[in-house]
Amino acid sequence: MTTAAERPARPDETTVAAVVAALAERFGNRLVTSQAVREQHGHTLTWIPNQPPDAVVFPESTEEVAEIVRLCAAHRMPVIPFGTGTSLEGHVNAPYGGVSIDMSRMKRIVAVHAEDLDCTVEAGVTRKELNEHLRDQGLFFPIDPGADASLGGMAATRASGTNAVRYGTMKDNVLALTVVTPAGEIVKTSTRARKTSAGYDLTRLYVGSEGTLGVITEVTLKLSGIPEAVSAGVCPFPSVKAACDTVIATIQMGLPVARIELLDEVMIRGVNLHAKLGLQETPMLFVEFHGTEAGVKEQAERFGEIAAEFEGGAFDWATQPEDRSRLWQARHDAYWAALALRPGARSVATDVCVPISRLAECVDETKRDIEASGLISPIAGHVGDGNFHCQPLLDLDNADEVERVKGFIDRLVRRAIAMGGTCTGEHGVGQKKMVYLVEEHGAPALEVMHTLKAALDPLNIMNPGKTLPPRA
Amino acid sequence: MTTAAERPARPDETTVAAVVAALAERFGNRLVTSQAVREQHGHTLTWIPNQPPDAVVFPESTEEVAEIVRLCAAHRMPVIPFGTGTSLEGHVNAPYGGVSIDMSRMKRIVAVHAEDLDCTVEAGVTRKELNEHLRDQGLFFPIDPGADASLGGMAATRASGTNAVRYGTMKDNVLALTVVTPAGEIVKTSTRARKTSAGYDLTRLYVGSEGTLGVITEVTLKLSGIPEAVSAGVCPFPSVKAACDTVIATIQMGLPVARIELLDEVMIRGVNLHAKLGLQETPMLFVEFHGTEAGVKEQAERFGEIAAEFEGGAFDWATQPEDRSRLWQARHDAYWAALALRPGARSVATDVCVPISRLAECVDETKRDIEASGLISPIAGHVGDGNFHCQPLLDLDNADEVERVKGFIDRLVRRAIAMGGTCTGEHGVGQKKMVYLVEEHGAPALEVMHTLKAALDPLNIMNPGKTLPPRA
Repeated sequence: MTTAAERPARPDETTVAAVVAALAERFGNRLVTSQAVREQHGHTLTWIPNQPPDAVVFPESTEEVAEIVRLCAAHRMPVIPFGTGTSLEGHVNAPYGGVSIDMSRMKRIVAVHAEDLDCTVEAGVTRKELNEHLRDQGLFFPIDPGADASLGGMAATRASGTNAVRYGTMKDNVLALTVVTPAGEIVKTSTRARKTSAGYDLTRLYVGSEGTLGVITEVTLKLSGIPEAVSAGVCPFPSVKAACDTVIATIQMGLPVARIELLDEVMIRGVNLHAKLGLQETPMLFVEFHGTEAGVKEQAERFGEIAAEFEGGAFDWATQPEDRSRLWQARHDAYWAALALRPGARSVATDVCVPISRLAECVDETKRDIEASGLISPIAGHVGDGNFHCQPLLDLDNADEVERVKGFIDRLVRRAIAMGGTCTGEHGVGQKKMVYLVEEHGAPALEVMHTLKAALDPLNIMNPGKTLPPRA
Repeated sequence: MTTAAERPARPDETTVAAVVAALAERFGNRLVTSQAVREQHGHTLTWIPNQPPDAVVFPESTEEVAEIVRLCAAHRMPVIPFGTGTSLEGHVNAPYGGVSIDMSRMKRIVAVHAEDLDCTVEAGVTRKELNEHLRDQGLFFPIDPGADASLGGMAATRASGTNAVRYGTMKDNVLALTVVTPAGEIVKTSTRARKTSAGYDLTRLYVGSEGTLGVITEVTLKLSGIPEAVSAGVCPFPSVKAACDTVIATIQMGLPVARIELLDEVMIRGVNLHAKLGLQETPMLFVEFHGTEAGVKEQAERFGEIAAEFEGGAFDWATQPEDRSRLWQARHDAYWAALALRPGARSVATDVCVPISRLAECVDETKRDIEASGLISPIAGHVGDGNFHCQPLLDLDNADEVERVKGFIDRLVRRAIAMGGTCTGEHGVGQKKMVYLVEEHGAPALEVMHTLKAALDPLNIMNPGKTLPPRA
């Protein structure tokens, strides 16, 4: 573990053949090298071409993952952890080849400690699978990215979703991780204690590290009680600015909204097409309150007063659980809804996050930019945190269109950073946003990140070509 | 930056003289070498002897801190960051000599962004100074360790306090830091965005690193709105177990208490003596609710019902702000109150944290151990998080007593770890708890921490002899 190899290299054919043979012997038909499966594991929801791994292996335990990583390390073979493949910035592509470790067979719910409001699951369990398992116990896990992602993948990308404004992100809801290091050691990052000051925060070191520092194999999560009362609804606004100003006032007033989501009029049109809803095609806020009956009622009333000040229209409350489910399903399906706006087109979803005082301005400028660029790009956002998504639709075979979209996203990111924000609030860096890290963090901070990477993965085998741009 | 020096060494006299001369020339009377000031900066609230630094310097800016650290690095001179000196586990002692960087002249409130509920302050600002500054704006910073500690020191020890059950710890409330690295570079760890997935979480890397990875010079913090309504009170219980069971039920029910503090009957006796209160000398819960008038009323009623189930006595509500202040001041002064139980004695305060389901059992066993050990050791705790403090009183000149206290704390820590907890919930590791890190985290995790330390501080000049035990 003494050689530093900062520039990754694609292993030669002999190396690949040796690793594949060894894995095939050990894992039998849980080692797959068919073109289709390899391409599926290198897929990307960006304009970056598919870069398939050399092989895909399906471990069933932390020990098996450690075995795989040790074998790869011995051959300096890249390792790409793979959850459900729903990441949006090119996290699972394999630009240097290597072995994709598909966690989909690691589905054990290891333990649920209802009395401590926590649980431990293997990394391949998805958020919906966990919530299905928890339902009978009156508990739920609140973090909900659009996709039914794996909890290991969600930890790796520091994911969040619609509930983050109240419940936090993966950073806040992971108590501990089991991680296989690039040398194949098994590390437990922390205990189940709710808080600790016992040494460096290894949990947060790996949360958001996108598989570049190790493979997350188990996740210990905080759980929440299913709220006694829930109230949700949608409210139309005359402009995106009016909706954003409502959000800003709500947050500043300290109203404990559980969810507050913006969908612009373009996204609403997509939602109507996709989910057969008849929403008014104007900017909308989808909101939800969690608490006691009395508390929820009080919060909803206050929110109504704030919305009215900013010319919000009549609130449409979904009081029945089925109505609420339909509403939030429509919101979660925004990715697919957007595609309905231009049949046959692909979309590249991306996100930024700014201090909430700059939200209205940032969304407004972005909408003007979309218009000036001649793009269709619906906007949806977890605006209670200042976080929003743009989803430009494009024909990936039309070079001019791809360039226009690239230019638009570049300006979007630079706009957010210039406003004191970040190039990504929740999607992560992957391949696509590496180029912005120096601009956002500055060279000294990036050098610290490079130092961490070089120290923890001296052979640079863990998901090479992601997260950090090449060292200056 | 290529030489690794894992074992720290005390610099020789020539080196010390050279560094002191250079600092004196640069900083004039802001460089102090008097015995009294050196001893004050090496003081410890443990049984470990005072180990004074060679000199104390009082910088007034981040750039000055960087200059000092660069000078020290050039001479391989240890650097010990110093806030208010209220840490409890020997964090500021200087076992290898070196330069103590006293942050008390870095008191600027750099910016308050009321509209974004955040602020940036220099590391020497204390929590009470910040709250004094914020009061007019209807905002407050909720983290409240017992002492009026500096916010830089609180970040460095991952501090929390009575509000953590609702508002989180420093881990959750620091948005970004400015840190001077061991090479004297200035790093900004993040932006003011509420959430980000843009690279490794450098903020959480430095929060809790106890000055061993760099010097925190500025802190960007989340702020909270001063709640519209507050309701607080005390409730007596027949036993510590009954009080803990009440806490467990409260948390499991999801009641959003802002504070829920246990004081055992010994601590209550101290509080009565110190604060001239007439509380019933039995285990007590101090609780507080934050919210709207209606919300707080509802929460208090529910809590009363739960307490009654566990034989809690009549609730004494403090409805006036002055009464509440008096109550919480008494709680915050527990350290001093404990000393009132044995005039002339010293105390060594320590803390552990366990999953809340084990809290009653852990506190109960600990109380039996105190009795069996023939010690006076009041207990107070932020029990909503499973975190509690023991404060054995002792005569530091009585070797037998010191040994008995050491044995008691050793058993306390091992008991907490065996119950799935941590050797410290909020005080930190310092000098005194290094020995428990392997037991708590396991050798592979500790090796990752050592790798981080060696990579980021290759000369081992940053607060050597703290946090991590010598490498295996």
